[in-house]
Amino acid sequence: MLYETFEKIYALERAGKKIIKLNVGEPDWKPPKSAVKAACLGMKTGAGIYGSSAGESPLREELARLHGCKKENVVITPGSKFGIYSLLKILLRNGDAALSFSPNWTAYGLMCNSLGANLKLIETRQEEGWKANLAGLEAAIDANTKIILLNSPGNPTSVALLPKEEEELISIAKSKGIAVLADDAYRDLCFDARKERQFDGHTLIAGTFSKTFGMTGWRIGYAIAPEEMIVKMAEMHRITITNVPVFLQSAALSALLQKEKIARRARRLCKKRAKLAFGMLGSKLQCVKPNAGFYMFPRLPEGTETGKFLDSLLEKGVAIAPGGAFGNYKNHVRISLCREEEALKEAFEKINSAL
Amino acid sequence: MLYETFEKIYALERAGKKIIKLNVGEPDWKPPKSAVKAACLGMKTGAGIYGSSAGESPLREELARLHGCKKENVVITPGSKFGIYSLLKILLRNGDAALSFSPNWTAYGLMCNSLGANLKLIETRQEEGWKANLAGLEAAIDANTKIILLNSPGNPTSVALLPKEEEELISIAKSKGIAVLADDAYRDLCFDARKERQFDGHTLIAGTFSKTFGMTGWRIGYAIAPEEMIVKMAEMHRITITNVPVFLQSAALSALLQKEKIARRARRLCKKRAKLAFGMLGSKLQCVKPNAGFYMFPRLPEGTETGKFLDSLLEKGVAIAPGGAFGNYKNHVRISLCREEEALKEAFEKINSAL
Repeated sequence: MLYETFEKIYALERAGKKIIKLNVGEPDWKPPKSAVKAACLGMKTGAGIYGSSAGESPLREELARLHGCKKENVVITPGSKFGIYSLLKILLRNGDAALSFSPNWTAYGLMCNSLGANLKLIETRQEEGWKANLAGLEAAIDANTKIILLNSPGNPTSVALLPKEEEELISIAKSKGIAVLADDAYRDLCFDARKERQFDGHTLIAGTFSKTFGMTGWRIGYAIAPEEMIVKMAEMHRITITNVPVFLQSAALSALLQKEKIARRARRLCKKRAKLAFGMLGSKLQCVKPNAGFYMFPRLPEGTETGKFLDSLLEKGVAIAPGGAFGNYKNHVRISLCREEEALKEAFEKINSAL
Repeated sequence: MLYETFEKIYALERAGKKIIKLNVGEPDWKPPKSAVKAACLGMKTGAGIYGSSAGESPLREELARLHGCKKENVVITPGSKFGIYSLLKILLRNGDAALSFSPNWTAYGLMCNSLGANLKLIETRQEEGWKANLAGLEAAIDANTKIILLNSPGNPTSVALLPKEEEELISIAKSKGIAVLADDAYRDLCFDARKERQFDGHTLIAGTFSKTFGMTGWRIGYAIAPEEMIVKMAEMHRITITNVPVFLQSAALSALLQKEKIARRARRLCKKRAKLAFGMLGSKLQCVKPNAGFYMFPRLPEGTETGKFLDSLLEKGVAIAPGGAFGNYKNHVRISLCREEEALKEAFEKINSAL
C-alpha cells in the first residue's frame, strides 16, 4: 500500500511536479558530520575488509555500556529491521504467533508471514488515546504465542506507553514464558526524554541509528539479547550479510558518542513540529496529541474516502500515507513531520483545504 | 572450522605475534580510489537516505548492460552471499535439495540447513584435476532437487569448468526443469579472461564487488534472475535490509565503470602468484595448478595430521585453512594467495619447512 504511493510520487516527480513528501518515516536532519568523517576515513584506511559477524568490539562495548549489559549481549545489524527479522527467525516456528498492538508498523506482519508464522494484532483505539490494551493482549496469548513485539513510541501513532504500562506488559509476558522484543526505533524521541532501556536479561531490544541520528539509509542498527541468541544472530549474519561494513560501524560509534546532544536536539525539533501540526490540523482532524517521534495518525472526517483524499492531496503536491497500511485503520492517515517548518505549514494548509 | 582458526589467530595476535594470514579469501588489493571518493561524496550530499529495495537504477542499468539483460532482471544485494541466500529461500522448501560439486564453499550447506533444505554434494577429485563430475551430478538429481549451485572458478580449488562443461551442466538442469545458480564471485579472475556471463533467462547469476574490486567488507553484490524472482528478492529486502546504502551503490558503479582495467590487473596478479605458489610448493604438495583466482587446495603428504600441521604452522606465523571446512577433504588445506610476493615467499618457505 505504501509502495503504491511511492510509485505515484515518482511518476509525478518525473513529470516535474514538486511534492512535499510526508509519507515516509525519514528524518530530515543530517547525519553527524563526525560520522561521515569516520566512515570516509575508514574507507580510505583499509576498514573495507571483512569484519566480525557480531560487530566490532568498540561499538558493541559502547552499546553495552548504554544498555547496562555485556558486549556479548550486543550484535550489530544492517538496520534494526534485520535484527528484528533475525530474532523472529530464531523464536518462531511454523504456525507460531507473535503479538503486537495495532496500528502497527507494516513490516512485522510481512516478516512473520515470511517465516511461516502469524502476527496477531491487538487493536487499540484513538478514542482511548491509543492506550495499550493490556487485557486484550493477555487474552490473546495462547500456546502458539512466542513473542510480543512492543513498538513504543509506535509507528504510526507516535504515542509511547507509560513506563508502568511497559512494566506490566513485560511482567505478563514473563509470567507466561513469552519473549518481549522492544523495537525502540523512536524511544530517543519521547518528549519526556526516557532513559536508555537497560537490558533485564529477558526483554530483547532492537535499536537503530536511523532515526535519532538521521542515518536511515546507512543501514545500521543493533540488537541486545541473551548471549546464546546473539551467537545465533551472528551465525545468521555469516550466511547472509557476513558483517555490517566496519567503516559504517566506526561512523555509528562516532555518532553514539554524541548521542545525548543529538537526541536532545532531535527531540526538541519533533516536539515543536508536533505542536505545530496539532495546532494547524487538530480542529479539522480527530487526532491524539503525539508524545514522541514525528508521526501524526489522525482519522479523516466521516464520509471521506481515504484513497480519493490521498490522490487529491497528491495532486496538490503533498504526499501522506494511508492508514490501512498500518492495520484495520482505513479511515486514518499517517503524516510524517519530517520537513522544515515552512514546508510543514504549506502542507498542512493544503491538507486543510483538501478536507 | 574456519572460525576456530580465526579465534586462534586473534589470540596469537593479541599476544603480539605476527601472522601471515593466508586463511581468508580476501584480496589484498585496495578498492578503486574513485569508489571511495564516490561513497564519501554520497554520504556528504544526502545519499544516506532510504533507497529502492531493488537497487538504484544507474547501477542496475550498468549491470544489465554487462550481462545482456534488462534492469528489471537485476537486484543489488548486501554481498552476493545475501543474494544466494535469498534465491535459495525462494526456490527451496522444507526437504528440498540443492546440488553442488565438492569441495565447496562452506556457506552453501549452512544456508540450505537454515532453510530446512539439504545440500547434496557431488565430490570431485584432485586426481582428475577437480574436473566437473557431470555424470555424478545427473545421477544425484531426484524429485526433491530444485537447484544446482555452480561455483566456477570454485572456492577452494580455483579451478574453473570449461565453457563446454558449463553448457552441458546447464543443459542437464534445463532438461530436468531444475534451476542453476552461477556463483560467479571469482569469474573475473579466470586466467583465460572469460567474457561476462550473459543472462540466458534460466541460469541465475550471483555477482559481487568483493573480489575483483577488493571491496569485501563493503558488502555489495547483485543477482540476475527472471523478473518475478527479482521482485521477490526486493520484497525480501523490504523485510530485512531495506536497501543497500545508496552511497555504496554509487561507489560500486564507479568501480564497475573501470572494470576491464581493474579485472585485467587483478587477473595478472593472481596468475603470477599462482605460478609462484605452484613453483615453490608443487614439489612437496600434491596440487592441481589453479587456472583462476587466488586459492590453492593441495593435499598434505600421507600421514600428516591436518590439525596438528595447521597448529604448528600457525606457531611459525602462517595461517591457512583446513580442507575439512570445504567438504570431505580433511587431508587438504586451502591457501589464499592474498599477500604481496615477499610475504607469500616467506609463508611458502615456512610451509615447506613445516612439512
